[in-house]
Amino acid sequence: MLSVIKIGGGAGINQRAALSDIADAVARGEHVVVLHGCSDATDRLAADLGQPVRHVVSTAGVRSRYTNAEALRTFMMAALRVNAEIVRTLQNQGVNALGLSGLDGGLLRGPRKEALRIVEDGRQRIIRDDFTGRVERVNTALLHLLLEQGYVPVIAPLALADSGEAVNVDGDRAAAIVASALLAETLVILSNVPGLLADMHNECTLVTALSAAEISQYETLSAGGMRRKLIGAREALCGGVRRVVLADGRVEHPLQSALAGRGTVIA
Amino acid sequence: MLSVIKIGGGAGINQRAALSDIADAVARGEHVVVLHGCSDATDRLAADLGQPVRHVVSTAGVRSRYTNAEALRTFMMAALRVNAEIVRTLQNQGVNALGLSGLDGGLLRGPRKEALRIVEDGRQRIIRDDFTGRVERVNTALLHLLLEQGYVPVIAPLALADSGEAVNVDGDRAAAIVASALLAETLVILSNVPGLLADMHNECTLVTALSAAEISQYETLSAGGMRRKLIGAREALCGGVRRVVLADGRVEHPLQSALAGRGTVIA
Repeated sequence: MLSVIKIGGGAGINQRAALSDIADAVARGEHVVVLHGCSDATDRLAADLGQPVRHVVSTAGVRSRYTNAEALRTFMMAALRVNAEIVRTLQNQGVNALGLSGLDGGLLRGPRKEALRIVEDGRQRIIRDDFTGRVERVNTALLHLLLEQGYVPVIAPLALADSGEAVNVDGDRAAAIVASALLAETLVILSNVPGLLADMHNECTLVTALSAAEISQYETLSAGGMRRKLIGAREALCGGVRRVVLADGRVEHPLQSALAGRGTVIA
Repeated sequence: MLSVIKIGGGAGINQRAALSDIADAVARGEHVVVLHGCSDATDRLAADLGQPVRHVVSTAGVRSRYTNAEALRTFMMAALRVNAEIVRTLQNQGVNALGLSGLDGGLLRGPRKEALRIVEDGRQRIIRDDFTGRVERVNTALLHLLLEQGYVPVIAPLALADSGEAVNVDGDRAAAIVASALLAETLVILSNVPGLLADMHNECTLVTALSAAEISQYETLSAGGMRRKLIGAREALCGGVRRVVLADGRVEHPLQSALAGRGTVIA
């Protein structure tokens, strides 16, 4: 059984607990591919470098990090260091983790968003110096090669754009396409909320179960991060993944809880 | 035929030209493993972060970067970004490059130098917060697995210490032990000098050929970087590597020139 596990990069995520759960799963003989975010680490590095952190809102209403050339360098360093720290922590727990970014072996490829249509102060404008992209192709042969030899791939949210640049990609959607490409049984997305909330300001309004068909009714109601998670969940289920669990990454046993069905189970 | 190529991280290295030569070699069907340094990138990042760069001189007279916990984080970020940029550049030239640090799959392992005996202002003192180490073991199975599938491994100078930490390792000596472990035909070390100089202040005094037995007479005469290169060369030749070339990384065709024997050829 193969699970793809995305560990969010937001503040408050209990990364150590998630990695400890992953080590237990691997010890039980499960195949695991890990993806991770790095938003908190990127913000902190940008602050240390005295760089402003900017976000933009697309005309579709999705908020995302604005990544010009300078911000891309910062993002890359933060992402790759988070990746290396995850690998090191897993190695120290007996897991033969191996870190990759989407550049390595052309693992994650797709178009760079050449022009980003955003809304700023109520007006539309186009940004052309943004280094973000979308993953369309996964080098599954590389992942299978590593999994067969007992390695646990740990993937940073960077892709190799068709135009040759390194680009920042959304970790949730990257996890979804990796899960689809590998036909994973389960995709677990751990973040700093308990799952999908009917009212995003009230953690007691957790939606515990959802069918793929019901996703769209929540998509437009959700903001930034959750909206991308729902889009990812839909893409993963369409791609053949059996079950997506959006779960709380702040708890003591985040992966164990998620696999036991705590969170929002979408199937 | 397998070559291990170390691209120095010092200022002035023509990295783009070295990578272009590597792409040509790979296109000719040669097997290549790349290691790289990152000293210039680390110094620049440390400056951007307002961190002091410190070096220490061991009692044996070898100068090296002082890497406390903060400096290690900076070193990791610089090393991993240089790694990703090399991978990206090679991918854009049709080479299926795949970046690894010594943490990945436990690729490079060995002891952390728990206590570093240094000389400061003429006095000996011991430093215990230094995160540097020495590579003693190489996961050759991983490198063979990747080479057999047509990937070109690109290795950053970080190792997984036996005590569990990430450590900064000397790139030249890491390249030497990788070359030995793989029984490479040739180890090429590209740096910002033409090779071994009889008089280090005069580039016209290049030593063009040297036997393994003659290395020791130059070892004590050489400073910092060149001394480590000679130690690495000796270790590589003892380990079964046929030929080590210390060559100029600042020229138009650094690898082509080195393989043609320009530089210091040690065999």
